[in-house]
Amino acid sequence: MTKQDLLYEGKAKRIYRTEEADTLWVEYKDEATAFNGEKKDTLLGKAKLNNEISSHLFMRLAEQGIPSHFIRRLSDTEQLVKQVTIIPLEVVVRNVVAGSMAKRLGIQEGTALPRPIVEFYYKDDALGDPLITEDHIGLLEAASQDEVETLKEMALAVNEQLSELFDGINVRLIDFKLEFGRLKEGTILLADEISPDTCRLWDKDTNQRLDKDLFRRNIGNLQEGYQEILNRLITT
Amino acid sequence: MTKQDLLYEGKAKRIYRTEEADTLWVEYKDEATAFNGEKKDTLLGKAKLNNEISSHLFMRLAEQGIPSHFIRRLSDTEQLVKQVTIIPLEVVVRNVVAGSMAKRLGIQEGTALPRPIVEFYYKDDALGDPLITEDHIGLLEAASQDEVETLKEMALAVNEQLSELFDGINVRLIDFKLEFGRLKEGTILLADEISPDTCRLWDKDTNQRLDKDLFRRNIGNLQEGYQEILNRLITT
Repeated sequence: MTKQDLLYEGKAKRIYRTEEADTLWVEYKDEATAFNGEKKDTLLGKAKLNNEISSHLFMRLAEQGIPSHFIRRLSDTEQLVKQVTIIPLEVVVRNVVAGSMAKRLGIQEGTALPRPIVEFYYKDDALGDPLITEDHIGLLEAASQDEVETLKEMALAVNEQLSELFDGINVRLIDFKLEFGRLKEGTILLADEISPDTCRLWDKDTNQRLDKDLFRRNIGNLQEGYQEILNRLITT
Repeated sequence: MTKQDLLYEGKAKRIYRTEEADTLWVEYKDEATAFNGEKKDTLLGKAKLNNEISSHLFMRLAEQGIPSHFIRRLSDTEQLVKQVTIIPLEVVVRNVVAGSMAKRLGIQEGTALPRPIVEFYYKDDALGDPLITEDHIGLLEAASQDEVETLKEMALAVNEQLSELFDGINVRLIDFKLEFGRLKEGTILLADEISPDTCRLWDKDTNQRLDKDLFRRNIGNLQEGYQEILNRLITT
């Protein structure tokens, strides 16, 4: 397998074609961005950490019967994935109030939710990735009603597996953002990445942040937090 | 019936107690506000227009079997209403994309929706009345799941009646905001007001705005627009 021309460059990854029609080559970048790109920096080693953590989590989810676009890790910063058409929704699962939910609803960060909540945000940088309702999803033709049900079910299944996994390494899974894509024949697969860039992860004893809030809020060394997550994951 | 002490003063109305425990005295104000109070002005005659239009619409809805808190109009700017506990939700029904929905979703204002959409906003000035999902409503304990279903049904029933009524006076009902309240025993009633302050109303032939966008967007004389609505309503 070889890397061919660049198909897409996002904030944290570059996606290349390969000689196989349905297989893409993902290269993680050392760049960190927050607040819709307003804050950015280069953080050496982040690419490797997210590539390793995301590969590990996709494999663990596959073992539990949750399919994703992930095929295999290629190098420190690269992985192969199946080509999917990304559904333009950020599917957010929350177990504990934090971040934008705390601000939107005026509820203290850290408040545990009685049960997990799934939210949909419209993936559109120009619009600032707004929260939308299921009616809006239909209107935007972002996904069908059946697909929305599938997305919710899959997101909650991912939450169950990841919550248990992180609980086992003494980390609270506060919330996380998933993206999904469609294979040509319509099957929905988990896509994008699952990493401390896309999850809020708090140490269970100290509430220490081990995720991108380290960067967003300037409250500690991002790479140290991500390395801590990786170390705990690979030693369980 | 006499006006007793002031119970509450909002942006557009003052609410007084009366000697009857479950009856309140509403006084409309000539003040106009927009953008969560950032823009404001005194517009002489607005109180009278909104009081007359809202009284008229509540009576027309009652004729169609849709109950509200409205009892009767008392004077040019005053009306009597039943006391309810306001549910802290702005229930918005949309037939055509406009205003915040156009901005949120990046859809051109004026785009007709395939069917009406109901949205819920959390009534909280400090939070800027954010759009929320039904899960958020549960979390905030703003209303029960059964009540949310009732609110949606009542909002759509109001939309059917008002759309027909406005259609009959050559006006397109673009969208509107409702508030609801609970009587002591739990019955949900339509409350607050229904006026060009809370509805978007466009002339069907010219698309001329006959609602608060005249003030919000500085595109014409608010009182003239509201007077036009009142004239058309009372001559049908």
